[in-house]
Amino acid sequence: MKVTVNRIAHFNAAHRLYNADWTDARNANVFGKCANPHYHGHNYELIVSVKGEIHPETGFVMDMKILKSLIETEIEEQFDHKNLNEEVREFKTLNPTAENIAVVIWNKLRPKIDKKLALSITLYETSRNFVTYSGE
Amino acid sequence: MKVTVNRIAHFNAAHRLYNADWTDARNANVFGKCANPHYHGHNYELIVSVKGEIHPETGFVMDMKILKSLIETEIEEQFDHKNLNEEVREFKTLNPTAENIAVVIWNKLRPKIDKKLALSITLYETSRNFVTYSGE
Amino acid sequence: MKVTVNRIAHFNAAHRLYNADWTDARNANVFGKCANPHYHGHNYELIVSVKGEIHPETGFVMDMKILKSLIETEIEEQFDHKNLNEEVREFKTLNPTAENIAVVIWNKLRPKIDKKLALSITLYETSRNFVTYSGE
Amino acid sequence: MKVTVNRIAHFNAAHRLYNADWTDARNANVFGKCANPHYHGHNYELIVSVKGEIHPETGFVMDMKILKSLIETEIEEQFDHKNLNEEVREFKTLNPTAENIAVVIWNKLRPKIDKKLALSITLYETSRNFVTYSGE
Amino acid sequence: MKVTVNRIAHFNAAHRLYNADWTDARNANVFGKCANPHYHGHNYELIVSVKGEIHPETGFVMDMKILKSLIETEIEEQFDHKNLNEEVREFKTLNPTAENIAVVIWNKLRPKIDKKLALSITLYETSRNFVTYSGE
Amino acid sequence: MKVTVNRIAHFNAAHRLYNADWTDARNANVFGKCANPHYHGHNYELIVSVKGEIHPETGFVMDMKILKSLIETEIEEQFDHKNLNEEVREFKTLNPTAENIAVVIWNKLRPKIDKKLALSITLYETSRNFVTYSGE
Repeated sequence: MKVTVNRIAHFNAAHRLYNADWTDARNANVFGKCANPHYHGHNYELIVSVKGEIHPETGFVMDMKILKSLIETEIEEQFDHKNLNEEVREFKTLNPTAENIAVVIWNKLRPKIDKKLALSITLYETSRNFVTYSGE
Repeated sequence: MKVTVNRIAHFNAAHRLYNADWTDARNANVFGKCANPHYHGHNYELIVSVKGEIHPETGFVMDMKILKSLIETEIEEQFDHKNLNEEVREFKTLNPTAENIAVVIWNKLRPKIDKKLALSITLYETSRNFVTYSGE
Repeated sequence: MKVTVNRIAHFNAAHRLYNADWTDARNANVFGKCANPHYHGHNYELIVSVKGEIHPETGFVMDMKILKSLIETEIEEQFDHKNLNEEVREFKTLNPTAENIAVVIWNKLRPKIDKKLALSITLYETSRNFVTYSGE
Repeated sequence: MKVTVNRIAHFNAAHRLYNADWTDARNANVFGKCANPHYHGHNYELIVSVKGEIHPETGFVMDMKILKSLIETEIEEQFDHKNLNEEVREFKTLNPTAENIAVVIWNKLRPKIDKKLALSITLYETSRNFVTYSGE
Repeated sequence: MKVTVNRIAHFNAAHRLYNADWTDARNANVFGKCANPHYHGHNYELIVSVKGEIHPETGFVMDMKILKSLIETEIEEQFDHKNLNEEVREFKTLNPTAENIAVVIWNKLRPKIDKKLALSITLYETSRNFVTYSGE
Repeated sequence: MKVTVNRIAHFNAAHRLYNADWTDARNANVFGKCANPHYHGHNYELIVSVKGEIHPETGFVMDMKILKSLIETEIEEQFDHKNLNEEVREFKTLNPTAENIAVVIWNKLRPKIDKKLALSITLYETSRNFVTYSGE
């Protein structure tokens, strides 16, 4: 009896889309106004999904208080009110697209969650754009 | 050509998280304020998802009016404005976590829906916590 | 230059609608399934609105961190995961309708907020029912 | 490393549910008020989901500006502020249920999107009814 | 102690914007694609707001069950799954803009609600456009 | 017969809260993580509200297509995907709090809208914080 439990969190961050190997003109051409060197920002909405068996004693797949706390420590404290390009190590050399941010979040949370549980990350960059990554 | 059709419904209920085999202290320790013996409550949002072939004459996988009516009879009438622990038979001996409520809803609806159709249940306990169960 | 600033918070609570001066039959007749003696519950969404002049040095009408903290101390800690009828002093003798809960919240917050600022409370009981009280 | 990227769009359209091979009485019986010959309408919300590898140079699975533009040209311009039964070729002979609209949208977009990318369509007909089609 | 109570409802309808005193060209020029003679449609979201004193015995400004029932009888049954121009008497000679629909709804509900209570109507035509009318 | 018409728009921007007359320590103390010199950002949601008489020929208070276009030219083009502190003239010397952004937007739109129409601005900085300014 496998159930997926999902926890929603938020962080507000600045970023720009930029490939350091390209000229500024090519960056502007590919990324448009998202390449603005002065940065812009988003209210990111994050859904962390964990799938596994229900524990018969607790009725939980995973204690949501523990998952909430993990998201705060591993993601919110490191991303919230930050400039992703300038202040988050992973994005020094990786373009902080929604796709890449989702992969980075998955990589940060995966080692902290029981291996028997499947992990999936959904990230809304705006109310009209979102991505999902499940480690496949 | 398989399509999933989804119907959203709501019920408002009281519950507490509690394992009758444990001491009160252990219940308080594991379930925190959710173990409050005076109960608290939620506006539960339920998404019932049914997947199957489109019927060529109607263009329906399943008539939504029938699905809506099934949810009313089987779930809303039995859960809405109720105390889940005290008034719903299944939770007399089962902790009403979101995970377990989703499994109970799946078990109640599964016999009422054509076996050729796959069934999945999503249940929001709050706007930040939700679970999904597909009978696997 | 008066601006209204609004802060949204949530609490999950059990309640029942009940007038102790009435018979059970009359309570059931007037309040319907909301009178269920075993209680039901809601995810309440609270909007606290404060109107006043923008402070020229900060650009704030009121520091949102302080308002957030006030709501946590005065409202969330006292209402969240509680049974309003049984555990909140004001509702021992007052029917916890959305209207009365909004008035109680206003009365609790009013003395804690600068008199020069106007205060208004909006409370969603469900996604389809909400109330507003401004102290008039 | 496969990520799903999702883009949300909207169109407002009139339709009625109707099988031309049936009598009016049978249409009314099966489709209820949805068979009204004067039409009714909806604000359709469309989620187009595209799954594939992240391109290492851009960090994109697919450029969202291109996907947005495709949805505008192929779907919004043809469906928005239209009568689906009267003005959209596919529904001259196909009942415009949410299921069939999702399949038609999938069929329109599939040839325009790189074959290496998987495509899935989610369509909300109302805030309580939605369908998903993935070409299976 | 005056509180505003608000009840949300929905109806799905077809309409077109059209002034019968104008040429088709002028209608097309002013109303754009909203003038499409084949109609388009919307999921209208309606908020009915009633302001007055809290009744000391019930804790209600107005019984929400009565307000819900009034909205069903007076508005939903007459507008839902209808073509506003063709099937709703008031719009035979009145352009069914969101503004005019809100005024018509206010006029229909005002005589049914206690004169001591103030009435206000909010109507969402889409998730990006809405109007409010308070009888002023 | 006065109706308020409301149009919703969005812009994504970077900002920091900062008073140039203060020390960095005082900025950090008052504005907390919002003072981060590397900036953070938000998806701002803007509601522009215009109140006036319904024009009898059109049924409009104001043509929404014109209002939408005004918001695009005056606000979105100047704020979207920008760094408010660095790239928007008004915030060179004014702290871009939600309150001040709302006032700046009101001041930009007021001269472009008929004086007979009242104007009000609502700005969501996050899903939990929003402000309203009506020119009073």
